[in-house]
Amino acid sequence: MAEMKIIVQKYGGTSVGTSERIKSVAQRIKKYIDKGYSVVVVVSAMGKTTDTLIALANEISLQPDKRELDMLLSTGEQVTIALLAMALHEIGIDAISYTGSQIKLITDGNFSNAKIESISTEKIMNSLKNNKVVIVAGFQGIDSDENITTLGRGGSDTSAAALAAVLKTRDCEIYTDVDGVFTADPRVVPNTRKLKEISYDEMLELARLGAGVLHSRSVEFSKKYNIRLHVRSSFNYEEGTIVMPREEMMEKFVISGITSKMDESMITIRDIPDRPGIAAKIFDIFGQNKIYVNMIVQSTGKDKLASISITVRKSDFKKAMDLCESINKDFKAGGVQSKEDIAIVSAVGVGMLSAYGVAGKIFSIMSEHGINIEMISTSEIGISCVIDSMYAELAVKALHKEFIGPEQK
Amino acid sequence: MAEMKIIVQKYGGTSVGTSERIKSVAQRIKKYIDKGYSVVVVVSAMGKTTDTLIALANEISLQPDKRELDMLLSTGEQVTIALLAMALHEIGIDAISYTGSQIKLITDGNFSNAKIESISTEKIMNSLKNNKVVIVAGFQGIDSDENITTLGRGGSDTSAAALAAVLKTRDCEIYTDVDGVFTADPRVVPNTRKLKEISYDEMLELARLGAGVLHSRSVEFSKKYNIRLHVRSSFNYEEGTIVMPREEMMEKFVISGITSKMDESMITIRDIPDRPGIAAKIFDIFGQNKIYVNMIVQSTGKDKLASISITVRKSDFKKAMDLCESINKDFKAGGVQSKEDIAIVSAVGVGMLSAYGVAGKIFSIMSEHGINIEMISTSEIGISCVIDSMYAELAVKALHKEFIGPEQK
Repeated sequence: MAEMKIIVQKYGGTSVGTSERIKSVAQRIKKYIDKGYSVVVVVSAMGKTTDTLIALANEISLQPDKRELDMLLSTGEQVTIALLAMALHEIGIDAISYTGSQIKLITDGNFSNAKIESISTEKIMNSLKNNKVVIVAGFQGIDSDENITTLGRGGSDTSAAALAAVLKTRDCEIYTDVDGVFTADPRVVPNTRKLKEISYDEMLELARLGAGVLHSRSVEFSKKYNIRLHVRSSFNYEEGTIVMPREEMMEKFVISGITSKMDESMITIRDIPDRPGIAAKIFDIFGQNKIYVNMIVQSTGKDKLASISITVRKSDFKKAMDLCESINKDFKAGGVQSKEDIAIVSAVGVGMLSAYGVAGKIFSIMSEHGINIEMISTSEIGISCVIDSMYAELAVKALHKEFIGPEQK
Repeated sequence: MAEMKIIVQKYGGTSVGTSERIKSVAQRIKKYIDKGYSVVVVVSAMGKTTDTLIALANEISLQPDKRELDMLLSTGEQVTIALLAMALHEIGIDAISYTGSQIKLITDGNFSNAKIESISTEKIMNSLKNNKVVIVAGFQGIDSDENITTLGRGGSDTSAAALAAVLKTRDCEIYTDVDGVFTADPRVVPNTRKLKEISYDEMLELARLGAGVLHSRSVEFSKKYNIRLHVRSSFNYEEGTIVMPREEMMEKFVISGITSKMDESMITIRDIPDRPGIAAKIFDIFGQNKIYVNMIVQSTGKDKLASISITVRKSDFKKAMDLCESINKDFKAGGVQSKEDIAIVSAVGVGMLSAYGVAGKIFSIMSEHGINIEMISTSEIGISCVIDSMYAELAVKALHKEFIGPEQK
């Protein structure tokens, strides 16, 4: 028997949103079978099913128990796997569906945001050897006590990457309703360019900065197991964007993307006596109150007085302000300042900081357009600037024009 | 610790049809908790969910693979268990939901009509000991290879009876949208009476004859394990009908119910040479062609020539006629007669045949009303007459009036 050529494909909610769409996915899978692939398919719940189920739960409880919510939500993917198997049978392709439980996709017990620990490949490999397409319910697993868990929003991407890892294949396709990863949000920048390739680190940075094409953990998995994640549309047969090791990339931009993240607020606590561990103490308090802090900048001023600026989700603004006011009081700091409507505009690109003059150019473009930078944060592969939210679109367009330019066809 | 008083309750689709209904079921369960019961709840899919899922499958395939159909349909009950657990939490009652897989409800591998082989009580008993209401998805199990199976329409009744059996309790309530088991269909006979009690055998006979309140296998289970099945409405707090051993019944009618089964056809093969095994041969052919034969009457005429009359579902009539014509030819019999629109009207009651004159009275009532009896079949606990379907309602009313009479309040 020839060695199997396994490919993992993941189809998102829009891609399997109706019975017609499911039939069209079956046709696409058939093309891979005809090419000799052994296909493992991961699917999400159909269309808005997950939202509908959450709304149903909320008719009964506004804060449903997480174990029971996972029990409820996992049914969405189970519906899709059965229907896709039927659609494949209809066009003469043998197929079998499996829940997370059936392939022993074991996670930790963190309901609604569980992490994958292991997957059994036995049933999957047996079915592939019997020339069946294997269809796996994304987003779900079980903990060690067989409770059903889910992996969090977008978790099906991670199911797919994890399956590619345990099945030891580098080929993983993520089908979605966009054509790939773009240099900026096409709704903001008209001449945004689709990237043919992007490195894992840049993709992670984009995800963190609000460009939500992929679930972050799927990229982390892919990086760890050296999987090539091909992000592409299920609505056409165009090539999408391949997330891959930087050293394999053919095409290397200095800046691969410009993002903006809205609905954030900024709070600064001024002139805090600079004792060791004070930042840790502050973020401990935020953690206990379940407020996610996106950007953090600490600067030391005169007389060993530090200022700490953070950004939080706008929906957490009031709660965060209360915490900062009490921290200000407890630490005898110099006062709290805030700006409720800010945007984080970021440029992402590997090696960007070492490239000559990039950071300086960003700041001068902002200045040329009269945009005041409130906060700057830099990482290995990106520069983020906090600005007034009303300038976000202008800033993205200006940076995109300078660093990426109009699409060359 | 005091010994647990376990009760199993099953709520059907209408009883859990909306989030409001589910909240109302939670309130009902609370009353049992307050009375000191340990409650195990079995639920069906909400309202018309199962039909909706079948329609969705049929958009893709008119004859979906049974394994995949079971995978699909089992999601309906899984939605309900999660929502009911949330509804109980909301009113301060601890509860936990389990799928068939989680409690290892093992069945044979007969998809869409599986039979229960065993149930593990470990998780259920642990949860009950921790003062949790245990909510189990009805209708579903897994086979020995962990494929999801379903028990057939109405199978949640059987899940409930089986749980009562393994949990060694006699108390099993079946909540539905009718008030109990009636002496005749209330839509046909206006003064039909609700039975306080009925024996297992009579209930089985009623189920076989088309009075579809309970899944037959749930009654068989209850008979075997001596469970008292209380059939009652979830829309009020009236007592319903208890299905129980005949010897425990307080109230014993000679005739406990009158039923009529419509949409049947009758076929007679006349003058078949009467060789041993000929009936078996005929029914073997029907079985191979998956035609369910409801009534069978064989009579021996002169010169060792037998006639065999059968009734089949009207939807199978044409196929059954073709088979009978070819049997007629093969066996050199005397011809095929048929009547496409007949009704089977039955009187059910334990010991009825031994009661003086009951059978004769039935025949004379039919005759008084000008109703011709085409076929008669008797069993230990019932008499069934095949008549022209246009007389069915008249026959049921007349028999009900004679044997059961108007309700005495």
